[in-house]
Amino acid sequence: MEHPANVSEALAYEGAGERIYSLAAELFPICRSITGDGVRATVRRLAALVDLEVHEVPTGTQVLDWTVPREWNIREAYIKNSAGSKIVDFAQSNLHVMSYSMPVRKHLPLEELRKHLYSLPQQPDLIPYRTSYYAENWGFCLPHRQLENLKDETYEVVIDSQLEDGFLTYGEYFHQGEIEDEVLLSAHICHPSLANDNCSGLALLAYLASRICRTKTHYSYRFLFAPGSIGALTWLSRNEDKVSRIKHGLVVSCVGDDGGPTYKKSRRGSADIDRAMVHVLKRSGHQPTILDFSPYGYDERQYCSPGFDLPVGLFQRGMFGTFPEYHTSADNLDFIQPAHLEKSYRIIAEAIEVLEGNFTFENTSPKGEPHLGKRGLYGAIGGDKNAAASIMTMLWVLNFSDGRHTLLDIAERADLPFRAVAGAAAVLGKTGLLRRV
Amino acid sequence: MEHPANVSEALAYEGAGERIYSLAAELFPICRSITGDGVRATVRRLAALVDLEVHEVPTGTQVLDWTVPREWNIREAYIKNSAGSKIVDFAQSNLHVMSYSMPVRKHLPLEELRKHLYSLPQQPDLIPYRTSYYAENWGFCLPHRQLENLKDETYEVVIDSQLEDGFLTYGEYFHQGEIEDEVLLSAHICHPSLANDNCSGLALLAYLASRICRTKTHYSYRFLFAPGSIGALTWLSRNEDKVSRIKHGLVVSCVGDDGGPTYKKSRRGSADIDRAMVHVLKRSGHQPTILDFSPYGYDERQYCSPGFDLPVGLFQRGMFGTFPEYHTSADNLDFIQPAHLEKSYRIIAEAIEVLEGNFTFENTSPKGEPHLGKRGLYGAIGGDKNAAASIMTMLWVLNFSDGRHTLLDIAERADLPFRAVAGAAAVLGKTGLLRRV
Amino acid sequence: MEHPANVSEALAYEGAGERIYSLAAELFPICRSITGDGVRATVRRLAALVDLEVHEVPTGTQVLDWTVPREWNIREAYIKNSAGSKIVDFAQSNLHVMSYSMPVRKHLPLEELRKHLYSLPQQPDLIPYRTSYYAENWGFCLPHRQLENLKDETYEVVIDSQLEDGFLTYGEYFHQGEIEDEVLLSAHICHPSLANDNCSGLALLAYLASRICRTKTHYSYRFLFAPGSIGALTWLSRNEDKVSRIKHGLVVSCVGDDGGPTYKKSRRGSADIDRAMVHVLKRSGHQPTILDFSPYGYDERQYCSPGFDLPVGLFQRGMFGTFPEYHTSADNLDFIQPAHLEKSYRIIAEAIEVLEGNFTFENTSPKGEPHLGKRGLYGAIGGDKNAAASIMTMLWVLNFSDGRHTLLDIAERADLPFRAVAGAAAVLGKTGLLRRV
Repeated sequence: MEHPANVSEALAYEGAGERIYSLAAELFPICRSITGDGVRATVRRLAALVDLEVHEVPTGTQVLDWTVPREWNIREAYIKNSAGSKIVDFAQSNLHVMSYSMPVRKHLPLEELRKHLYSLPQQPDLIPYRTSYYAENWGFCLPHRQLENLKDETYEVVIDSQLEDGFLTYGEYFHQGEIEDEVLLSAHICHPSLANDNCSGLALLAYLASRICRTKTHYSYRFLFAPGSIGALTWLSRNEDKVSRIKHGLVVSCVGDDGGPTYKKSRRGSADIDRAMVHVLKRSGHQPTILDFSPYGYDERQYCSPGFDLPVGLFQRGMFGTFPEYHTSADNLDFIQPAHLEKSYRIIAEAIEVLEGNFTFENTSPKGEPHLGKRGLYGAIGGDKNAAASIMTMLWVLNFSDGRHTLLDIAERADLPFRAVAGAAAVLGKTGLLRRV
Repeated sequence: MEHPANVSEALAYEGAGERIYSLAAELFPICRSITGDGVRATVRRLAALVDLEVHEVPTGTQVLDWTVPREWNIREAYIKNSAGSKIVDFAQSNLHVMSYSMPVRKHLPLEELRKHLYSLPQQPDLIPYRTSYYAENWGFCLPHRQLENLKDETYEVVIDSQLEDGFLTYGEYFHQGEIEDEVLLSAHICHPSLANDNCSGLALLAYLASRICRTKTHYSYRFLFAPGSIGALTWLSRNEDKVSRIKHGLVVSCVGDDGGPTYKKSRRGSADIDRAMVHVLKRSGHQPTILDFSPYGYDERQYCSPGFDLPVGLFQRGMFGTFPEYHTSADNLDFIQPAHLEKSYRIIAEAIEVLEGNFTFENTSPKGEPHLGKRGLYGAIGGDKNAAASIMTMLWVLNFSDGRHTLLDIAERADLPFRAVAGAAAVLGKTGLLRRV
Repeated sequence: MEHPANVSEALAYEGAGERIYSLAAELFPICRSITGDGVRATVRRLAALVDLEVHEVPTGTQVLDWTVPREWNIREAYIKNSAGSKIVDFAQSNLHVMSYSMPVRKHLPLEELRKHLYSLPQQPDLIPYRTSYYAENWGFCLPHRQLENLKDETYEVVIDSQLEDGFLTYGEYFHQGEIEDEVLLSAHICHPSLANDNCSGLALLAYLASRICRTKTHYSYRFLFAPGSIGALTWLSRNEDKVSRIKHGLVVSCVGDDGGPTYKKSRRGSADIDRAMVHVLKRSGHQPTILDFSPYGYDERQYCSPGFDLPVGLFQRGMFGTFPEYHTSADNLDFIQPAHLEKSYRIIAEAIEVLEGNFTFENTSPKGEPHLGKRGLYGAIGGDKNAAASIMTMLWVLNFSDGRHTLLDIAERADLPFRAVAGAAAVLGKTGLLRRV
């Protein structure tokens, strides 16, 4: 019998928050998009923690209903006023340029320029994050206060980008477990300098991979660091034969803020991952938000499309679109904190502990209650509160280990923490009173 | 693919309330009972709107556990006081005579007469509505205030009725749809001058029939205008072979007041008609009362008897027995209003729209999200709120169109109006992304 | 068709409370343990009401995972102070000696003695109840106030007990019904002078047995008066072949106080006994506590172990462990009352009435509503409230008697008392409108 403590020890979170934060901080400045050198640089940095495989998929490759787009790279971009001063500069913040902007180099009056400027009137000091992946366009993003003060003059705009045939890049790490059945952990890698969305998720999963890779696990684990939508579609397209091995999965994003925690269930709604996450979140000391699946969000949209219908949920702290920093320059390294990252890590690690240990047992002495005393299972001191709780947990495990209830079933039925139930099962297993089925 | 808009256009309610009201007003004065010329006159009036078939079933015909009773007709009825004045006169209100009263012609003292007088002590100004179909009796109904003031003298009572072998009359209209499966719409025709109960229901269904008859529908529609209980039993008895075609049904009564709306579910409890009505009512802008089936009420009692167990619910505004005007002379043409009738009509028409369009589809590109952009399915302007809502609706339809969810399933799951979901399905169908199963 | 009134008459509770109380009062002084002459004396007393069989099972017999222990008997026990006065005396209260105390006869200083003294600091005037069945030990129980005042001197302790090979004793009464299927009623017989726990349960079940034995029942009834845990295990072990006959069962304990009522469901959770008890308790005029099964409590632990999984619940007034008198000398004859015992008896008797009459019927005229009037089933007076209620009950029974709903299903669906539903079924059965399936 596998003692789940193995995994929980392997995933021990002492200091995890700090390590995840500092990795996220390294990833933050890189200008990522759905393709290009920013993704490559990010994957390379993650590969320092865990030996991941880098995939390069050529432009034009058909991936399910989609096509891998041209690769986008950018060197510099700015707007100069008539006095020749750079008033908006990509070098200051990569959010200033709309992602996938076409190259442009021209002079225009304010009236023309404004059609290509994006700002947030409600948050006048922040730079918004905008993209135009599938329609040819170019644009700059800037604080609304700055936009409002632009003089009516002629501006020089330069976007030194290129949009050419190239590759879509993603990173993948596979850890072989006892069985072929897999747990998929996926984070999007396509956002530029947004700390929570998703440097936090990339860093957390890379750190988790670096812990998982050192331990013997029951399940195999697959980590995917790929651009949103098109990256997941590409992976699914290239791995249709392996998809059925995925028995549990999580999309991880926005895990560094103080919000939530938020869990959006898989399309199936009561998959093991859904139940494990709900179990852990209800005992996390936070008031979690548990949402039913809906077909909008991150890559769970792809994994849970009806042709795959994988048991993959979405874990976040604050839910996307609901925190004011979302998709703005305020989603920076001050917005995420080591403590929040550590809590997020802990929640995911505990859910993995549940998945790893959620076996089904059979009571080998099912008729009447087994005599615990003669097996030394009673605490030394009769009045010991912990001993009584431990006996009670053993009685729950014995009574419901009829081959039809998993340990998580029993934990839910008894309203006990999974770890306590798994611990009782381990003790009972040693006496021969439980047999795994 | 059938676009449900066909039906919703055909049933367009502009001015429906006024038309239904004026028909109800024409029906109001007629003295109906479970048999007799009043029913005939009513059916004849309805036949002016839609070409319905009139059935005449002879007295003594065995109908299931019952027997068609003798036919009742009445010419005049009154009570004269000793001074020879008519103090109660059928000519003033047909409620004054207990329905199915035996003929009587005699002089009696007040003490004897009182045994045959019915009044409402709690509503002393109103005439009650009373019947005695299956026990031989006679009686007069009058305001309690009048009854209390009757002098202790001898009265002449005359009821010039006849109760003889004849026929039970009912009207039936059938509209052939694309398929043999039927929607049954049934209203009781046996109450005399009671406007809400059920001139309102008769008029509404006759108007609906006059709209349905002009359109191409998926289902066939059967409208039944028959006396309560015995009429439904008679129809069921004569159509046992057709009963299994009824896939959805509604009994309609008391639909002209401002109460409710009230829906009593079919015995099955989650039949499509139950779900369609609940869906429409929850979005009707009213606070609906949704009741589980119980074996008392209108003809849903017969349709939902265990030997038939048809998916037939009851739609009303105020629930029978719960509004003070119920079964009194206050249920008159002032109690019902065109606006209320129009709302009731709209609710039924929308439920029909749901039934007509509640198909099941299969996403033809089920692996990953289809690329909506390349099919021109994204709104022109990215920030358009309506466009975003419409994209979201399409994503719901695509994700749950796996051959196992109907559009109503999807509307309920997504908490969206059926019409929006059906509209998205129509758009997707045109692009080939959906295929009806 | 069996009219359930038979059983309810047989179990008529007039005076039941007084009779049960006086029997409990007779049982109270006897010093019971899990074996020994106290159990024998108790069984003998119960046998005066109903001719029960006494079983004697030898020490050392293997019963499932357990072994029948040595038999324990005690003649006297006391603590004398240095002045030779008996300061604690078994003759005053059998709670003074820890049950299954080894024989002891020695002089010891207070310091040594204290290791064998048990008291309740929070309830300083009460003697606690303590046992040490499966670990060799000895001890005295006394009020904490007395313990605190013991002088620091040498004490003489005498426990004149014997713990030798002998027998485990239990009583069993079987009443043959129309069918082999059984109802099990079980009470633990192992506690000494504790009135509620469980003189009350023993007395109630013995009285119930004395009523059941005089009547013709549908089910067979088995009453078991056995020591807690080991007694139930012993019976189960010796009757494995009969266990599958148990279709319903109740463990009865602590039924003389004013608490609760409390019902703990069987492991199955929606067994007929669970539904019958919940039905009766919700209409009992009390606010019942309904608990899901948990694997701790009385002998339902054994009956509901996974290898048996019998449909056996636990009925109590105040739940064990939750009332302050529990397992102390305050659980005496003042704590239980005839009125409470009678209410408890009434609840169990009504649940038996439900089980006995919970048949399934088929409406023989299932198409449309049967004509009740022609069968004389309408009350004489149309406006009679009771008649209307009775008609309504008949309509519920007719509508749902489709061969798939028991009378309890119908009572629950209609929110009517089982007795009313069963009464309507009896009336309808006489007219031939119902046929038992």
